[in-house]
Amino acid sequence: MSRLDVTEKIIAAKVSKGLKWSDVADQVGLSKEWVTAACLGQMTLGAEQAAVVADLFGLTDEEKKWLMVVPYKGSLPTSVPADPLIYRFYELVSVYGTTFKELIHEEFGDGIMSAIDFRMDLQREPHPAGDRVSITMSGKFLQPAL
Amino acid sequence: MSRLDVTEKIIAAKVSKGLKWSDVADQVGLSKEWVTAACLGQMTLGAEQAAVVADLFGLTDEEKKWLMVVPYKGSLPTSVPADPLIYRFYELVSVYGTTFKELIHEEFGDGIMSAIDFRMDLQREPHPAGDRVSITMSGKFLQPAL
Amino acid sequence: MSRLDVTEKIIAAKVSKGLKWSDVADQVGLSKEWVTAACLGQMTLGAEQAAVVADLFGLTDEEKKWLMVVPYKGSLPTSVPADPLIYRFYELVSVYGTTFKELIHEEFGDGIMSAIDFRMDLQREPHPAGDRVSITMSGKFLQPAL
Amino acid sequence: MSRLDVTEKIIAAKVSKGLKWSDVADQVGLSKEWVTAACLGQMTLGAEQAAVVADLFGLTDEEKKWLMVVPYKGSLPTSVPADPLIYRFYELVSVYGTTFKELIHEEFGDGIMSAIDFRMDLQREPHPAGDRVSITMSGKFLQPAL
Amino acid sequence: MSRLDVTEKIIAAKVSKGLKWSDVADQVGLSKEWVTAACLGQMTLGAEQAAVVADLFGLTDEEKKWLMVVPYKGSLPTSVPADPLIYRFYELVSVYGTTFKELIHEEFGDGIMSAIDFRMDLQREPHPAGDRVSITMSGKFLQPAL
Amino acid sequence: MSRLDVTEKIIAAKVSKGLKWSDVADQVGLSKEWVTAACLGQMTLGAEQAAVVADLFGLTDEEKKWLMVVPYKGSLPTSVPADPLIYRFYELVSVYGTTFKELIHEEFGDGIMSAIDFRMDLQREPHPAGDRVSITMSGKFLQPAL
Amino acid sequence: MSRLDVTEKIIAAKVSKGLKWSDVADQVGLSKEWVTAACLGQMTLGAEQAAVVADLFGLTDEEKKWLMVVPYKGSLPTSVPADPLIYRFYELVSVYGTTFKELIHEEFGDGIMSAIDFRMDLQREPHPAGDRVSITMSGKFLQPAL
Amino acid sequence: MSRLDVTEKIIAAKVSKGLKWSDVADQVGLSKEWVTAACLGQMTLGAEQAAVVADLFGLTDEEKKWLMVVPYKGSLPTSVPADPLIYRFYELVSVYGTTFKELIHEEFGDGIMSAIDFRMDLQREPHPAGDRVSITMSGKFLQPAL
Amino acid sequence: MSRLDVTEKIIAAKVSKGLKWSDVADQVGLSKEWVTAACLGQMTLGAEQAAVVADLFGLTDEEKKWLMVVPYKGSLPTSVPADPLIYRFYELVSVYGTTFKELIHEEFGDGIMSAIDFRMDLQREPHPAGDRVSITMSGKFLQPAL
Amino acid sequence: MSRLDVTEKIIAAKVSKGLKWSDVADQVGLSKEWVTAACLGQMTLGAEQAAVVADLFGLTDEEKKWLMVVPYKGSLPTSVPADPLIYRFYELVSVYGTTFKELIHEEFGDGIMSAIDFRMDLQREPHPAGDRVSITMSGKFLQPAL
Repeated sequence: MSRLDVTEKIIAAKVSKGLKWSDVADQVGLSKEWVTAACLGQMTLGAEQAAVVADLFGLTDEEKKWLMVVPYKGSLPTSVPADPLIYRFYELVSVYGTTFKELIHEEFGDGIMSAIDFRMDLQREPHPAGDRVSITMSGKFLQPAL
Repeated sequence: MSRLDVTEKIIAAKVSKGLKWSDVADQVGLSKEWVTAACLGQMTLGAEQAAVVADLFGLTDEEKKWLMVVPYKGSLPTSVPADPLIYRFYELVSVYGTTFKELIHEEFGDGIMSAIDFRMDLQREPHPAGDRVSITMSGKFLQPAL
Repeated sequence: MSRLDVTEKIIAAKVSKGLKWSDVADQVGLSKEWVTAACLGQMTLGAEQAAVVADLFGLTDEEKKWLMVVPYKGSLPTSVPADPLIYRFYELVSVYGTTFKELIHEEFGDGIMSAIDFRMDLQREPHPAGDRVSITMSGKFLQPAL
Repeated sequence: MSRLDVTEKIIAAKVSKGLKWSDVADQVGLSKEWVTAACLGQMTLGAEQAAVVADLFGLTDEEKKWLMVVPYKGSLPTSVPADPLIYRFYELVSVYGTTFKELIHEEFGDGIMSAIDFRMDLQREPHPAGDRVSITMSGKFLQPAL
Repeated sequence: MSRLDVTEKIIAAKVSKGLKWSDVADQVGLSKEWVTAACLGQMTLGAEQAAVVADLFGLTDEEKKWLMVVPYKGSLPTSVPADPLIYRFYELVSVYGTTFKELIHEEFGDGIMSAIDFRMDLQREPHPAGDRVSITMSGKFLQPAL
Repeated sequence: MSRLDVTEKIIAAKVSKGLKWSDVADQVGLSKEWVTAACLGQMTLGAEQAAVVADLFGLTDEEKKWLMVVPYKGSLPTSVPADPLIYRFYELVSVYGTTFKELIHEEFGDGIMSAIDFRMDLQREPHPAGDRVSITMSGKFLQPAL
Repeated sequence: MSRLDVTEKIIAAKVSKGLKWSDVADQVGLSKEWVTAACLGQMTLGAEQAAVVADLFGLTDEEKKWLMVVPYKGSLPTSVPADPLIYRFYELVSVYGTTFKELIHEEFGDGIMSAIDFRMDLQREPHPAGDRVSITMSGKFLQPAL
Repeated sequence: MSRLDVTEKIIAAKVSKGLKWSDVADQVGLSKEWVTAACLGQMTLGAEQAAVVADLFGLTDEEKKWLMVVPYKGSLPTSVPADPLIYRFYELVSVYGTTFKELIHEEFGDGIMSAIDFRMDLQREPHPAGDRVSITMSGKFLQPAL
Repeated sequence: MSRLDVTEKIIAAKVSKGLKWSDVADQVGLSKEWVTAACLGQMTLGAEQAAVVADLFGLTDEEKKWLMVVPYKGSLPTSVPADPLIYRFYELVSVYGTTFKELIHEEFGDGIMSAIDFRMDLQREPHPAGDRVSITMSGKFLQPAL
Repeated sequence: MSRLDVTEKIIAAKVSKGLKWSDVADQVGLSKEWVTAACLGQMTLGAEQAAVVADLFGLTDEEKKWLMVVPYKGSLPTSVPADPLIYRFYELVSVYGTTFKELIHEEFGDGIMSAIDFRMDLQREPHPAGDRVSITMSGKFLQPAL
């Protein structure tokens, strides 16, 4: 058994039980973004969180233990993602990557936006010409050590 | 001469003249995100915008015309970017790609967030434990046609 | 169980039962292009459509539920497809990609043809020197947001 | 000198002189799709066509000769194209590739749609919810020899 | 079950029963080149041909049906083949590819040799300094449509 | 200066002078296949052959010397060739590679067809349904040493 | 069953039975280099050799037959090998590849060292500063055919 | 100026002056294998060696200094080499890589053959059935530290 | 059964039994770095070490034997690692690779730091602004043989 | 002009003037590791540091300005580095990557060692059996935000 097996069981159980990520997040008591990522094998759950998730998805004790182990992260099967929804995010990096770089350096100097000390929030943004997806990201600025 | 030559001339002129993207954006009268992307060869400028940019960076008439031609977009030299700042955005897609997918589908059903009908805003977020980079993205939700 | 398993069961059942995609489409009541793509794991079916498809291919309730989940799309095993029929479409993109780009920009300005708000129709075009494949594509033009 | 040099000179001359592909095509007397592809180094011009193109873009005699030589075709700098407009066509192959394959084989049996004995037509399709790009493709069906 | 499973069963049965491709071809009544390719999952058999092949290799009815379905073609596990015998053919394309191109264009003008309307014949060519492999290929010349 | 520079000069001179490969071959006194490959940088010419080639294409003494140096061979810019004519040969390897392997081993046992002790001949094959390209290849069979 | 299955069974049986390649080679009566390569799926055994190998490793009759079939050769899971021992050989090709080329051409003219009509011998070379691995390779020189 | 420029100048000067690597090696007083590799930018020359090489190839003082700088090594333009002579060495690694690994571990235990503390010797091996290339390699065995 | 199976069993047993690598290392009597690497399939254990490890993780005799066989090393599923923790080490090589090269050559001349005769030590480094990971590496300098 | 041009000029000037990185670092007043990386285009210099570097390497004012601009980082020409010295570091990541991951998580829990808030020190470690390269790395541990 591996974490991947547990992730696949969670995904299958979600389809079978008709669960929603936002409901799972409410039960766990953390943001839907963090909880979804964790269930998809990208975050590590604490003992209480793992108990809630195991209960909701019907995991065994063995499987629950895997939720508390740091997973090998990275969720894409290919380096350039084929799925159209995920590709659009890759395209943002491809098209706006140098823009992100220029503007962050202009504001902060040399360094990066952390992808670890990082939080995000995804919401529906109602709009008369068609609703929009709104995503807010916040990552700590990190400076190179001298 | 090609658009790439013009982009490189703009970047070199910016270093040489000590310009800031936010000042260029103020002169052009559009957001710093859009203007920076346009100067870096990822957007197409209208005649008046091109005149302002050409003036600021000291471009010839020939070079100014290239600013009004739709460029071949995509700003990364390799499919997985090597630069640490840009890589962190790639890592967000790699780690959170399936999370984006699950949460957008849960809220909107099948479809994508447009990377074309898309706007973003990048700001410094002051924080006692170290300032943060804050990015807000807004993209139209698009549904598959039947 | 995953959507891939369901797709493979559909393909195997089609061979075993000798079904035709156009007949499946008639039963579902949508175009053969959309229904084939959906059965091959590239579209999401509504409850009624899924019921018809499940019935035709002999799927279980569990498998039927997967048809209503948005799949991870992209149907090629390699980034450059090896199959001769599919490669010819890749070659069209390779040879005519810049032509598509020039002519769409000449007609519409900066932007893209949507691959999501998109429909197509594939027909036999009788011809004395050998029949031809005729494909009509229609995708919404999308303009970058300022 | 190479065909690539000639193609780049044509593209630069088009920007400089403000020519339109549809006008070039009218002068050459062939479809805008074929003429654009030819000017972009994907087709071979006859002597008269080359003379018209050379005249419009201000090519030398040496450069005109290159237009009559069969070029090394394929216009993409990477196997998965980065430009958003061209990527959407790649995505169509990725998402609908197996659908094309199934429907062509269902109608014609084993074989392919030729990408050589091939014609296409690209038009604006007016639509109240936003105009659409309409592309019609016609390729001869080719059967494997026994 | 998939065509790949049937191909693997055929290959294993050939080892187990000690069959020869030329004998299979004689039974089917077509060239050894075409029949071998078909058994290896690169061609589509008609009903009578499939019956012969199924009989020789001990296939079930279900497996026989797969022989009549157009397979996803392309028989190499990597884009540059590792096996020395197959690599030599890749090397011929690599070393002589531009020579093929120059000589076909010199004789026929713009166009290609079809790999679909294509036949080949492979024979032993006795030679005092060591026998040689002789391969004759014949493919229809196809001209671009105007 | 490098062999690549000499090859490019030969190609440009051929366009400029309107030479034909078959005429060059007649002057050199060897097959058009070998001479074309040599001029394209895939073979090494002897002193007399180099003198003829240098004369025909107007090469300097320095350039002529490069023709007598064994070149770094392999004429494709990408491992999967983009040009449609050359791709068809790659497709033959991809589709028929395992067939070549099976039939050569069936006839000769373990070993390969040499791509070095190799000759080929390319001819027009007249045909009422459209002329065909005919290629005959002959390569020495090589057996593994014990 | 496939040759790969047989190779894996041989490797597992070797671990389980504690066999040594040099002992297997003695039993087969051929060099340890050839016999090891053969057991690892890179060479084809004759009937008597296969009987010895099958006996030593406890193979079934079916498995023994696979040893007499020419395998799909090439033993690396990635084109640049990750294993440090094997990588060092790749590095020799990378660092000394052009040196091999220059010196072989200087001695023999155009052509190659055959990797098929090839033998090698691997020995321990005692040395006061630490023993060394000594490998002697011998491959037939092959000249291009005119 | 870079080491690559110096390497290219050496190669061009060798063609122009008609030098032989073995003569260069005699002048330098080291093996032809080491000297050729050094001239091709894979080794670092001492002051006296550099003076000899600079003199033979007509290098400037500036260029001579580059010969004494450790170069960025690795001489292949692609990870799988296209040139037939060099590819055969890659094929040896691909086919015999696991054999090298098994036999070295059988003789020495865990560790590698060094590619740095390494020497080789390349000779013509006369043979009635055609002369052979003989290469002897000697690399220090290195054991993992505990 | 293969070494990979044994590695996976060890990893699963560690999760199930809640073992710590440092405790395993104490039992084995070697550094935690070496023992962890060995358990993860990157080192070879002696008979006594293997007995301890087999006992702790509940391995069978067959599985224990695999621990004493030199494994195929290299622990990354992709050449550029996706996991953020491991990627940071890749980034160090990418960003500081040329710096390592310059400084080692400046101190030692031509040669390398061995990755085989290599040891490392990983510790927590307490720090008021947040604890740090401290890694000390020691590898033997190796000089090219003349 | 670009930062890459400045980097290349620095490297060439270092060869020409015979400078040492440790001397440059002493002049700049920072560690040799940081200064070497900065001169190689991987760090950003402040005004005073840039003045010292410009003076030592003979840079123009224009070139000096580039030293104060954040560069596009990543110093490797290929994703798997070919140079033997740099490859050994890549091999450490490949072989010990999962070990780094396990031991850091065991000590710190989920998170990473920063490659930005990172310092290192490279020294010669004298040793009777041959001197060793000793590298100490220190990177801040970063925890995922909830």
